[in-house]
Amino acid sequence: MSLTNASPSEAAKAAKGASHVLATLSASARNDALTAIHSGLAAARDDILAANACDLELARKAASTGDLSQSLVARLDLGKKGKWEDMLKGILDVRELEDPVGKVTLRTKLDDGLELERVTCPIGVLLIIFEARPEVIANIASLAVKSGNSAILKGGKESTESFIAISKVISEALTKTQVPNGAIQLVTTRDVIPQLLDLDRYIDLVIPRGGNELVRYIKSSTKIPVLGHADGLCSIYLEQSADPKMAAEVIVDSKTSYPAACNSLETLLIQESALQALLPTAAEALIAKGVTLRCDPKSKVALEANLPADMAKMLVDATDVDFDTEFLSLDLAIKTISGVEEAISHINTHGSHHTDVVLSSSQDLAEQFMTSVDSAGVYWNASTRFADGMRYGFGTEVGISTNKIHSRGPVGLEGLMIYKYKIRGCGQVTASYGEGEEARSYKHERLL
Amino acid sequence: MSLTNASPSEAAKAAKGASHVLATLSASARNDALTAIHSGLAAARDDILAANACDLELARKAASTGDLSQSLVARLDLGKKGKWEDMLKGILDVRELEDPVGKVTLRTKLDDGLELERVTCPIGVLLIIFEARPEVIANIASLAVKSGNSAILKGGKESTESFIAISKVISEALTKTQVPNGAIQLVTTRDVIPQLLDLDRYIDLVIPRGGNELVRYIKSSTKIPVLGHADGLCSIYLEQSADPKMAAEVIVDSKTSYPAACNSLETLLIQESALQALLPTAAEALIAKGVTLRCDPKSKVALEANLPADMAKMLVDATDVDFDTEFLSLDLAIKTISGVEEAISHINTHGSHHTDVVLSSSQDLAEQFMTSVDSAGVYWNASTRFADGMRYGFGTEVGISTNKIHSRGPVGLEGLMIYKYKIRGCGQVTASYGEGEEARSYKHERLL
Repeated sequence: MSLTNASPSEAAKAAKGASHVLATLSASARNDALTAIHSGLAAARDDILAANACDLELARKAASTGDLSQSLVARLDLGKKGKWEDMLKGILDVRELEDPVGKVTLRTKLDDGLELERVTCPIGVLLIIFEARPEVIANIASLAVKSGNSAILKGGKESTESFIAISKVISEALTKTQVPNGAIQLVTTRDVIPQLLDLDRYIDLVIPRGGNELVRYIKSSTKIPVLGHADGLCSIYLEQSADPKMAAEVIVDSKTSYPAACNSLETLLIQESALQALLPTAAEALIAKGVTLRCDPKSKVALEANLPADMAKMLVDATDVDFDTEFLSLDLAIKTISGVEEAISHINTHGSHHTDVVLSSSQDLAEQFMTSVDSAGVYWNASTRFADGMRYGFGTEVGISTNKIHSRGPVGLEGLMIYKYKIRGCGQVTASYGEGEEARSYKHERLL
Repeated sequence: MSLTNASPSEAAKAAKGASHVLATLSASARNDALTAIHSGLAAARDDILAANACDLELARKAASTGDLSQSLVARLDLGKKGKWEDMLKGILDVRELEDPVGKVTLRTKLDDGLELERVTCPIGVLLIIFEARPEVIANIASLAVKSGNSAILKGGKESTESFIAISKVISEALTKTQVPNGAIQLVTTRDVIPQLLDLDRYIDLVIPRGGNELVRYIKSSTKIPVLGHADGLCSIYLEQSADPKMAAEVIVDSKTSYPAACNSLETLLIQESALQALLPTAAEALIAKGVTLRCDPKSKVALEANLPADMAKMLVDATDVDFDTEFLSLDLAIKTISGVEEAISHINTHGSHHTDVVLSSSQDLAEQFMTSVDSAGVYWNASTRFADGMRYGFGTEVGISTNKIHSRGPVGLEGLMIYKYKIRGCGQVTASYGEGEEARSYKHERLL
């Protein structure tokens, strides 16, 4: 590992070279490296928190003059209750995950003494760009080592001191392991992102860990594949046969349990025939939680007729753009539609292909919705907020992807893997399998 | 399907809309569409061959003045022995493949009455850009329909008449099936490729079927993921313990059985200690097949001392650039190296991560080579030319990928699929799984 003044291309080239060694290490060698990182960080707690305090002091000053948001200051703080312990525990959690390297996923006997095998292997070099939260360094370094990938880490400038302190510790810890120098590259110099994004020769995958603006900028600035979602515009379709109480609970959880999350609800589609029977219960529960309802004309009329006057007063008229907006706040757009076909069409057109839900008592209708909606997650009678790697049982989460290739939805370690094909033969040549009397035939016997 | 004067963005938008319907069709509906395409083409044989004859006449004229290569004219000819029959049989072969849609690849009980499922589904809209060979239309249309993907097909201008004739037939055939209008878009207008490559909003994957120049141009011109390889620089490492006769046979097959193919051999790495014992046998066999050997100084000295004088005269001095060159001809670069480590390092640096081979009697050494070489195919004692979807037993081949994500190596139907996560619940909300005494815990019980 190096904490470098190296140029981006030197760092990337070194990471590529190291990735070829890292890919050959045993699971125990990679796990030992995680143990070393964990012990190193535990021992250096005071130094790291002192460095973090410097970052915090600068950030608080910037916040006091309005140059930085308070929420960013909060994300910087490694001393916040439980954060340090969670960071350390996260490293051990990753260590305990099943080894993703070297799994045989296909085995075919092509002919006698000629066997084909498909084996999982690391992708190569990951570029991870993240914003303020310094604990992400430890998390990402762990995931990279566990999966056998090299990583180039580029942190935000507000966390520079924390970043350098953690990096030094990780770096020293790794020198005592089999992980090669250069496998984890830390880039602290500014303004190198455009240069890094240009290095598709060395970098195989970019993982942005930050806000939508960062992700959108990166997606539009590189030829390297990007794992992540730029938007999370999730919808719920509330169908007439849904149970009113269940529906209200799921909608409230989806909207209010963490409004700034990408898997939070932004648009509620209500079936016209359910305006009277189902919408008011849900609306009351939402307003009670402080949600501003942005209603289309039909839903507004229905709610005005059914809500207490003080609540009805708080309704807002929806504009067209509301149905294409990821609010990330306690706002919800409500649109009246005729039925499931229109719901599917609306979601496929206006959604961000992240996570969408149907609330209904009809299994047939729910299955139609889930087959037809083109999103990474399609749920029946469950909150949008289940879209999460930990909740899915992946043990960790690299990110949530709205890509249509490689990895979709919450991405665990599997998303950092690819495969290679091995053939073990004894001198076979393809010309033997041509035409003619003496030609051999492929057996193509599936062994796994 | 439409054979359009539609603008690229209209065509792509229509393809996207159709993809949402196509994704919901049953396997039998998709297979019926393939039957209809097959019958339609079989019935229209004479018309299509007449259209093809027009293309051929123009092409032959262009070839006679040197404006077009003879090999392109040959690729255009649908009347060539067996080509028409192969095209028709290919459609039925695709129809008989296992349905790739709707396979459940993961099932987890998150909690009582809350089940997570990962299900394969089509990617969405494919853009396929191909050069002269008109039979590719039928092949690609079949693969798209079978996999539930929409496809936008852009053919080369030399095959315009054949393309239109085949397209009309496919179009008419599909109108009688459940495949929606717009699922297969045929674009014949010129100069639309840059516009299509800009439509990442509608197009999910680009598949270029043509020469390296086409692929390289496309890879550098779009944000849409590209499935394909720009280069196929395959190497063989001939290690001292290899059997001389076996080695010569594999090397000759790899180099000469189809020199223009991407999976043909371009660089031979010979272990220094095997220069006398192994290289001459292989070199003699290669020269007998007309291969020009471009030797580094050490290999040249060894061959001059061991080959008959008339053969030794034909040796050429290698230049540095030869070891980075995909010859696609009967040329082979030969480099002398110290051992397996140097072979691995040379291949990882100079190769194109396509397919590389070690010839050796040592299993340990072969396993080290296969683990360390960062290529889609790594073989022990087998020809590079086994890198092929049919030979791998995939039933069909969409292309060969040197990408590091999604699909690597020969790509079958699986490469046209992605997945979605379905959750079936009964009103669960994430807030129930928080902290506190009444909080529920995830069960994460793996059911599949």
